[in-house]
Amino acid sequence: MYKYNYLFDFTKNIFRKMGCGENDSTIIAEVFLAAELRGHASHGMIRIKDYYELWKAKRINTDPHIVVVHESPSTAVVDGDNAVGMVAARRSMELAIEKAKKAGTGWVATRNSNHFGIAGYYSMMALKQDMIGICLTNANPLVAPTFSISRMMGTNPIAVAIPAFKQPPFIADFATTPVARGKLAVAEKKGEKVPFGFVQDKTGKPSDDPAILKSGGSMLTLGGDRVHGSHKGYCLSSIVDIFSAVFSGANFGPFVPPSVAYLPVLDKKVGEGTGHFFGAMRIDAFQPAVEFKAKMDEWIETFRSAKPAEGEEKILIPGDPERESEERIMKEGIKLVPAIKDDLMAIAKELEIDFA
Amino acid sequence: MYKYNYLFDFTKNIFRKMGCGENDSTIIAEVFLAAELRGHASHGMIRIKDYYELWKAKRINTDPHIVVVHESPSTAVVDGDNAVGMVAARRSMELAIEKAKKAGTGWVATRNSNHFGIAGYYSMMALKQDMIGICLTNANPLVAPTFSISRMMGTNPIAVAIPAFKQPPFIADFATTPVARGKLAVAEKKGEKVPFGFVQDKTGKPSDDPAILKSGGSMLTLGGDRVHGSHKGYCLSSIVDIFSAVFSGANFGPFVPPSVAYLPVLDKKVGEGTGHFFGAMRIDAFQPAVEFKAKMDEWIETFRSAKPAEGEEKILIPGDPERESEERIMKEGIKLVPAIKDDLMAIAKELEIDFA
Repeated sequence: MYKYNYLFDFTKNIFRKMGCGENDSTIIAEVFLAAELRGHASHGMIRIKDYYELWKAKRINTDPHIVVVHESPSTAVVDGDNAVGMVAARRSMELAIEKAKKAGTGWVATRNSNHFGIAGYYSMMALKQDMIGICLTNANPLVAPTFSISRMMGTNPIAVAIPAFKQPPFIADFATTPVARGKLAVAEKKGEKVPFGFVQDKTGKPSDDPAILKSGGSMLTLGGDRVHGSHKGYCLSSIVDIFSAVFSGANFGPFVPPSVAYLPVLDKKVGEGTGHFFGAMRIDAFQPAVEFKAKMDEWIETFRSAKPAEGEEKILIPGDPERESEERIMKEGIKLVPAIKDDLMAIAKELEIDFA
Repeated sequence: MYKYNYLFDFTKNIFRKMGCGENDSTIIAEVFLAAELRGHASHGMIRIKDYYELWKAKRINTDPHIVVVHESPSTAVVDGDNAVGMVAARRSMELAIEKAKKAGTGWVATRNSNHFGIAGYYSMMALKQDMIGICLTNANPLVAPTFSISRMMGTNPIAVAIPAFKQPPFIADFATTPVARGKLAVAEKKGEKVPFGFVQDKTGKPSDDPAILKSGGSMLTLGGDRVHGSHKGYCLSSIVDIFSAVFSGANFGPFVPPSVAYLPVLDKKVGEGTGHFFGAMRIDAFQPAVEFKAKMDEWIETFRSAKPAEGEEKILIPGDPERESEERIMKEGIKLVPAIKDDLMAIAKELEIDFA
């Protein structure tokens, strides 16, 4: 088990050695560790190798000049200069918050960025300002639209954070697919099947093979099949893609660049890098913050009081599982499986950083 | 088969007779007929009786004084004064568009409203302004959160309309449940079962009985069950509820007032009436409109070119089915089933309007 601070400093050092500034490295480490704490290890330390390999391949810029290329009182478009995603994303969400302070709401579309970790991190930045935070991003194409077998979209997540008063905040952070890709990898490693409704084979037939992506298969959108509303998941994923990439001038859909170095740079570009979208809404642009937060308490308490189904203990409010995970992991420490530890050892050796 | 114009004038006359102004009646008729044309008959002429009965029971205000109760440069809260939903909604979306003209984006939360027909109508108002339109609303509680058997939420739809140039606009308009409630009613009338994943019984067991709501059952959120991501549908539905009701001061979740007169007024209120949320975003707050719309053409053409799965003809872009329906129904006319026609005949007689 690793202490939070140990892995934080280690992560920060890796990015310092890769040429990221002090402040940028701190942000990057914060986001990686937030993923670990919140129980989304698929976006945590396991991903550092991907960023490192992209950097070695000179496919990511650790000393970016991030600029605002277009703006209105409540909006902006940011060019991330091919930065590590966290750096472009954090800057963009800060700008959304600044805009919201003046105009009531702030909306920033970001292009020329890269994989940015967990979307929830950026939405949560709004909370301490008494704002609602929103974050969307597109991602590598793995998902087929309804009726199709082409991988056109990423797992395109949506994160929304809403403050309450006595209750902890409402924090939704979810992919627009039934499961995250990481769960397929886990099932594959264990030699298990996955439930139908997650993936299809290369002809579009339902499949329970978690490795089907390797033989031309694709992931399905939230809903699973047309009967169960997969076209709604397709709508959601499309909206995330359009807001993230068409608003900003990033690559959309099948043209989103790979977030790993072992996949080649795509032949065709329709924009710059990966795209994100951020929103910040001042609570008091709608209602006095005190009243709103008291009402959110009431909303949360009402939903907590819903009757559990037979065999279930309690109803969860979005953000509950992640908060419980944070408390537990902060106490118990972060566990790294041997394969990840080995990868990090190798990186530490190459960059001449201590890691044990 | 009825001509569009005939039903439009008839609908308008009904609301004129109920005391709605000339302009308001026109708006209401437009929204009812838009539902028919777009193939969402569940929100069309079949619903007129519900509005009429609410009016007879003095539960809806046909001469409302709609006011802005709070605002910032990019936001406002509107009190609908218990208006027919279409009237409060149209006014609110117009205000969102006005705000967007000045601030880049406009966001309006509306309380003290009622059922407003199809959400897509309001999102589409933005298109002719070269804006993106967004519309959310909460609705009567029929849907249980993941792990629960309590009906806490409505089918809470999301509508997003995005303009293109040569291509028709992208228009997503969907409930955050696998199916609309109307489909359960149709299956029930036909004596058919529904697929598992739509509803559960009063203990939380999966059910294929479309009439299960009558014996304590509930609808499920998009995703269907926890394994297939119903918690994501629950997140979406919650976000729609909070934006529509907590932002505005309307009733949230289980306290949304019934949109039919045969259900009694609820004992407990936590706000005023039903809540909606509207957004308008100027395209050129992000990019020159010409560039954005050309890029949307490219997005749409890219997705149209996705390979169909075996047995499927083509990929649809959100809005395609509704547009095809509009073209067909405008030509062929609108069909009313005998039961609906009888209801409308009875209303026409009571209000002394011609209808044949």
